[in-house]
Amino acid sequence: MSILKTTVLNKINSPEDVKKLSIDEMNILAGDIRKGILNRVNLIGGHLGPGLGVTEATIALHYVFNSPKDKFVFDVSHQCYPHKMLTGRKEGFTSPIEHPEISGYFNYEESAHDTFMIGHTSTSVSLATGLAKARDLNNEKYNVIALIGDGSLSGGEAFEGFNNASVLGSNFIIIVNDNEMSIAENQGGLYRNLKELRESSGTCENNWFKAFGFDYLYVEKGNDIQTLIETFQKVKDINHPIVVHIHTLKGKGFDPAVENKEWGHWSMPGLLEEKSIQTEMPECYETLTNNYILEKVKKDSRVIAVNAATPGVFGWNKEFRDALGENYTDVGIAEQHACAYISGLAKNGAKPIWAVHSSFIQRTYDQLSQDLALNNSPATILVYWGGINSADATHLGLFDIPLISNIPNIVYLAPTCKEEYMKMLDWSVEQNKYPVAIRVPYVEFRKSGMEDNTDYSLLNKSKIVEKGSNVAIFALGDFFSLGIEVKEELKSQLGINATIINPIFISGIDKELLKNLKRDHDIVITLENGILNGGYGEKIASFYGNSDMKVLNYGANKEFNDRVMMDELLTRYRLKKELIVEDVKKEL
Amino acid sequence: MSILKTTVLNKINSPEDVKKLSIDEMNILAGDIRKGILNRVNLIGGHLGPGLGVTEATIALHYVFNSPKDKFVFDVSHQCYPHKMLTGRKEGFTSPIEHPEISGYFNYEESAHDTFMIGHTSTSVSLATGLAKARDLNNEKYNVIALIGDGSLSGGEAFEGFNNASVLGSNFIIIVNDNEMSIAENQGGLYRNLKELRESSGTCENNWFKAFGFDYLYVEKGNDIQTLIETFQKVKDINHPIVVHIHTLKGKGFDPAVENKEWGHWSMPGLLEEKSIQTEMPECYETLTNNYILEKVKKDSRVIAVNAATPGVFGWNKEFRDALGENYTDVGIAEQHACAYISGLAKNGAKPIWAVHSSFIQRTYDQLSQDLALNNSPATILVYWGGINSADATHLGLFDIPLISNIPNIVYLAPTCKEEYMKMLDWSVEQNKYPVAIRVPYVEFRKSGMEDNTDYSLLNKSKIVEKGSNVAIFALGDFFSLGIEVKEELKSQLGINATIINPIFISGIDKELLKNLKRDHDIVITLENGILNGGYGEKIASFYGNSDMKVLNYGANKEFNDRVMMDELLTRYRLKKELIVEDVKKEL
Repeated sequence: MSILKTTVLNKINSPEDVKKLSIDEMNILAGDIRKGILNRVNLIGGHLGPGLGVTEATIALHYVFNSPKDKFVFDVSHQCYPHKMLTGRKEGFTSPIEHPEISGYFNYEESAHDTFMIGHTSTSVSLATGLAKARDLNNEKYNVIALIGDGSLSGGEAFEGFNNASVLGSNFIIIVNDNEMSIAENQGGLYRNLKELRESSGTCENNWFKAFGFDYLYVEKGNDIQTLIETFQKVKDINHPIVVHIHTLKGKGFDPAVENKEWGHWSMPGLLEEKSIQTEMPECYETLTNNYILEKVKKDSRVIAVNAATPGVFGWNKEFRDALGENYTDVGIAEQHACAYISGLAKNGAKPIWAVHSSFIQRTYDQLSQDLALNNSPATILVYWGGINSADATHLGLFDIPLISNIPNIVYLAPTCKEEYMKMLDWSVEQNKYPVAIRVPYVEFRKSGMEDNTDYSLLNKSKIVEKGSNVAIFALGDFFSLGIEVKEELKSQLGINATIINPIFISGIDKELLKNLKRDHDIVITLENGILNGGYGEKIASFYGNSDMKVLNYGANKEFNDRVMMDELLTRYRLKKELIVEDVKKEL
Repeated sequence: MSILKTTVLNKINSPEDVKKLSIDEMNILAGDIRKGILNRVNLIGGHLGPGLGVTEATIALHYVFNSPKDKFVFDVSHQCYPHKMLTGRKEGFTSPIEHPEISGYFNYEESAHDTFMIGHTSTSVSLATGLAKARDLNNEKYNVIALIGDGSLSGGEAFEGFNNASVLGSNFIIIVNDNEMSIAENQGGLYRNLKELRESSGTCENNWFKAFGFDYLYVEKGNDIQTLIETFQKVKDINHPIVVHIHTLKGKGFDPAVENKEWGHWSMPGLLEEKSIQTEMPECYETLTNNYILEKVKKDSRVIAVNAATPGVFGWNKEFRDALGENYTDVGIAEQHACAYISGLAKNGAKPIWAVHSSFIQRTYDQLSQDLALNNSPATILVYWGGINSADATHLGLFDIPLISNIPNIVYLAPTCKEEYMKMLDWSVEQNKYPVAIRVPYVEFRKSGMEDNTDYSLLNKSKIVEKGSNVAIFALGDFFSLGIEVKEELKSQLGINATIINPIFISGIDKELLKNLKRDHDIVITLENGILNGGYGEKIASFYGNSDMKVLNYGANKEFNDRVMMDELLTRYRLKKELIVEDVKKEL
């Protein structure tokens, strides 16, 4: 593989170089940038449609404004690929990269042109309001520009930002990138208003932005560099807050991403080689869940599948959504609402199942506590992608165990195999006493081959899978197989016949079982696929605090890792059978 | 004391009885209800202005709609006093109560007329959307009504609710109680739109509600029963979502609460006897903080005090706010924005100090993690009211330690006295490396009388206050005095000269100190004023998991307590010197 050939981009090393270009050259540059996006996404995967749609706007922004003196905040920051190419980081897109230095998100550690590290959505206006206020307190003069769009408007934090930014009284520019999409279709009344605004060229009677008191400009030709430059020049150095609403085409320049915008939002590597853009999923927790929901809804019209703007991740494709009809809700990027909504549904006799990422359930702690748990609403939450990963620091799956399991009333379950998962899911949907969250395994799809006869209504009862002595291994959920490996290693290296325990419940410990273990065990090992701090293992350690039992807790350190390879992390956290057995030896 | 005399209220045992009244009788009832509110607040304290303002609306709602078949959701639920009096719970207001059975919040455990337990704000529209959707899935017909107002509109969850409710396509009624106030003044552009709507009788060009696609009615006479009844009759059984915007007078019927609406929002007991409505605060953490801020701002224009709609709680009165001018921001009820805003401020060289309740910082977990911690923005957060209390289940201070201390990068500090607090506060404001939260002591105001020379930049260094042997007591923040008591009790009962340690840092343990303790200590006691699960003590237990050290963790259980008296809680959690020493005896 060689470096991608470009005509203009190769000469761009900083925004200063953009300012020297003619409109014609900038149009060629737009083509170069799109080649860069496709090149990167094809090689290592990533966000495709968002960057393709905002390419011209990014060029125009850098032509008109003076970054880093003028300050940009991108939201969702996965729209920042063109910005990165114009700010000295084009190698992350044009090189034959495998594991790039340059991330796919806004990242202040990479460049002075990225004001923050951002990955979650709907944050830009609030963050930028802080930048602008600090500027004013310092009596400085420059532009603060928040670029928001691609679904980001629907998050409550964005609204709180708009509400406060509108009364700032000084320079503040919000570019609303309206590409008619979120990750899937946009949801909610606000997006109807955007449609009215587009159809009336920004002149319709009710204008959500002007209602706050914002000055407002509409730009229909949001992919036309000349128009954008003229618009941005008009608002540059403005002395009050203004919204510039630009209409763009998501996926522009790559037809498959325009024709199927949801598919084109994000892609695995190899998109240029793929023959078909839809592939059948093999059996996995996603397919099991979705077949369960489809069957269940046929029998019970009260069952409803809920998600917040990421249906594709769970395999909730158009066919699935259409089949569910009224029994499906996508609330948009609005996890707080999703959580309160399922509480209301459950409280009124419906049976909601909300699928959500570990990283995004962080956006709704208070609703989990106040709206759901305090009300004991019997809703089901499926937490996907919880666990140690090599993702960007903004998308770790480390924190859901401390987040959820320390809230009273919520039953948080960790299945170790297909059979348990299916039993838990149905138990949760059919019971009416508890809010239940299930941590869908992340590392492996495992079948035990044995029917699960657990009575989950007997809360906090763990399962002794194989009884031994001396050492007991609490192998939580995803790390059950690691537990088995440790057991085998203990046997082969030390001749110890360890007990292996499937804790099942993350949200409570089995005190009776723990007490009984004291009889013939000296060492307890806990394994959890998440941060140790505030997690499951520490509760076991606390229980045994006044006993002679030795407790060794394994899990992730409290740290934000940014794209660190899994093997390095597992070694660092000693989450490998040989390292754990090494530790056990020291205790013998 | 005797039961309050009322003319009509005494005959009202359920909403059915309201329906039999004439308008004249209902007006008398409104007077009775106001007497009930004043009686209760005078006796035990509580929310005053909100209920007084919404009395007529509540009567009209119960006259027109059929609760509990029709379903109400109140938000903020402290507006529910009149509702409670009309739904079989008037004794909570007319009796000579000291510690009432009837709470001051919406509470489904009390009555079928309260659909949920609610205390935090901005939740009603989302919760009600769930109720309505479940109704539709069940093919049932009735009205779902969310009453929102008194500042609740500014929370992001409310916006997410509005965005989704607007596309519901079936019966849904939102009553916006516009009393021109939040707890203090309303904040943000949305409230300018409400003003425009009031001034134009709902006809102004931009209408925030209509922008979502809501049907909309404006009612200027929001304290006129006849008008309200006619309006509600118009919207009853409507087949689509509608917003009814009513203009009311906060505090109506009690002049001091009308004249000073911020003062009249909530009152301590004894308001009818008080001679002056403003009292001087004695020296306490609030006065120390505020004097510090006032002095600091004079020297450094980059210092800025931030809060989310509860300035009065911190003693941030009008004089304080006026003195700070541009160096003060009230973001309204919008904690997510507050958190992102201080991150932006700090990132751009300002020195923000955000004061917030323990219970309300729950509303911004993801922003603490993503906007603040991940960006290492050197902002200061003052967490007030963190600790075990006898408040309503909706306003506990139990959860901030697991919430904050398990997020990487945030330094969470626990001062034990005035001297440490002042040193920490200034260190935090002046340093530029870490986001810092300080847990302002809740139980007692203590002065050590000794200068604090701690170097807080040496993270996670705990302080041995008095070196002893055998038993070491980690007395965190607020529980330092309890630690001293335990030490004394150990001495007098068992002759043990225990070591007393001030952990200082909640967010990290002092491994070197912990290791050294092994030399001459057998038992470690941890004391923390919050939930044990996911907290500080468990980390100590985990550290000592592979040693012979016995660890006894003390703190609150994982449970929502609803107005349980402190003494009962402290006994239940064994947070008393004699109970702790009893436990230690068992380990000797």
